[in-house]
Amino acid sequence: MKHDPDTLFAQFAKRIGYLIDPGIKVGGNYTAVVADGDQVFVSGQTPRVGDRMAYTGRVGAEVALADAQRAAQICALRALTLLQRELGTLSRVRKILRVNVFVQCSAEFTQISEVGDGASEVFATVLGPAGLHTRTSVGVFALPKNAAVEIDLIAAAQPFNA
Amino acid sequence: MKHDPDTLFAQFAKRIGYLIDPGIKVGGNYTAVVADGDQVFVSGQTPRVGDRMAYTGRVGAEVALADAQRAAQICALRALTLLQRELGTLSRVRKILRVNVFVQCSAEFTQISEVGDGASEVFATVLGPAGLHTRTSVGVFALPKNAAVEIDLIAAAQPFNA
Amino acid sequence: MKHDPDTLFAQFAKRIGYLIDPGIKVGGNYTAVVADGDQVFVSGQTPRVGDRMAYTGRVGAEVALADAQRAAQICALRALTLLQRELGTLSRVRKILRVNVFVQCSAEFTQISEVGDGASEVFATVLGPAGLHTRTSVGVFALPKNAAVEIDLIAAAQPFNA
Repeated sequence: MKHDPDTLFAQFAKRIGYLIDPGIKVGGNYTAVVADGDQVFVSGQTPRVGDRMAYTGRVGAEVALADAQRAAQICALRALTLLQRELGTLSRVRKILRVNVFVQCSAEFTQISEVGDGASEVFATVLGPAGLHTRTSVGVFALPKNAAVEIDLIAAAQPFNA
Repeated sequence: MKHDPDTLFAQFAKRIGYLIDPGIKVGGNYTAVVADGDQVFVSGQTPRVGDRMAYTGRVGAEVALADAQRAAQICALRALTLLQRELGTLSRVRKILRVNVFVQCSAEFTQISEVGDGASEVFATVLGPAGLHTRTSVGVFALPKNAAVEIDLIAAAQPFNA
Repeated sequence: MKHDPDTLFAQFAKRIGYLIDPGIKVGGNYTAVVADGDQVFVSGQTPRVGDRMAYTGRVGAEVALADAQRAAQICALRALTLLQRELGTLSRVRKILRVNVFVQCSAEFTQISEVGDGASEVFATVLGPAGLHTRTSVGVFALPKNAAVEIDLIAAAQPFNA
């Protein structure tokens, strides 16, 4: 059976109870996705579900590791939602070049990579080999709207008729 | 009337009282701009005016939101100064692919996106549709020389004879 | 005499007592390097030597500036190790497009650029003009495994037969 990332995407979202929202918007004078040549840049995604920030607080204090990993999965699913909307299908994602993971954490928290693993699992499961990415994970002092995690990425896309 | 980004750039800078300084330098073994193919990478810009860091301190504590937004505008104007110097004219900026906004803030500060809006306004006003960008905004613990804000970007440029 | 980055790399590593380890691995569902077209993305590197994190703690508190600069050098050498493994030889590094420097620091630490200078020195010494890069340095609240510094980069590579 052929690897079908769109189906795997829907399955992963369903499994963790995340409702895919293709209408993701950003406020202000910027945009969620910019494509140029074969590169696609996706803006920083926080763990919003609809209009609600689903995971807020400091990881390592108010937010447990498992919840932070779930938050990272939602950020990753939102990024994939945007890629799917931009490209028509996730099967046009040729590579994920870079994933940046920002974790709003407590001063002594060191399991920052482990939070990023939540997002990496999404890309691996949904995209297979195309989802193998480079990653940089850092712990930051504060995130927009008190989000626990924020994730952005750069992907490489296949031309339509490739 | 044709959209003229160089004029709009000069007007925006004048309006907020920022003196454009085409002689921006960096210390050390790195450089302010690297262009390759049609991509142009700009180093992290802090709100310096001449040799002076114009906005220092923690946003949400010593620095009010409005001042942080002004700081973000200065960072953005500096980045445009460098793009103009590199490309000869801002009308060769085809797209802004990514803007990263780092805000040195207090522990409870959540209006990090709102600080980034200051920079996004500059790109939208000066570049029009070419200024529509993806953005990642995070709150960090410390910035070089106690700067309140730091912004970097990646742009796509038009070839000279396009 | 021709500039030979592979020799200069080995010499720099030897001078600071860093044992080059071509077997760098990452845990989890991501990878250390992704190349696409002529761009090469390198994952965030911490100052590990073998299995040991050589520099931990907060710069400006437990970690002195000189040690943080050494940590940044090790991160940079690790990134070069990965580029050399990916490209066969460092003489295929055509440009370093972007270096991001994340410093785990104390609240009042302002010499973040100075930490980054440690990494920039490595790229300049080993790669010569090809090592001239853009850079963004920020101070963060926490890094994976309590690392003092983390550095990632994007490079541009020369085709094999150029």
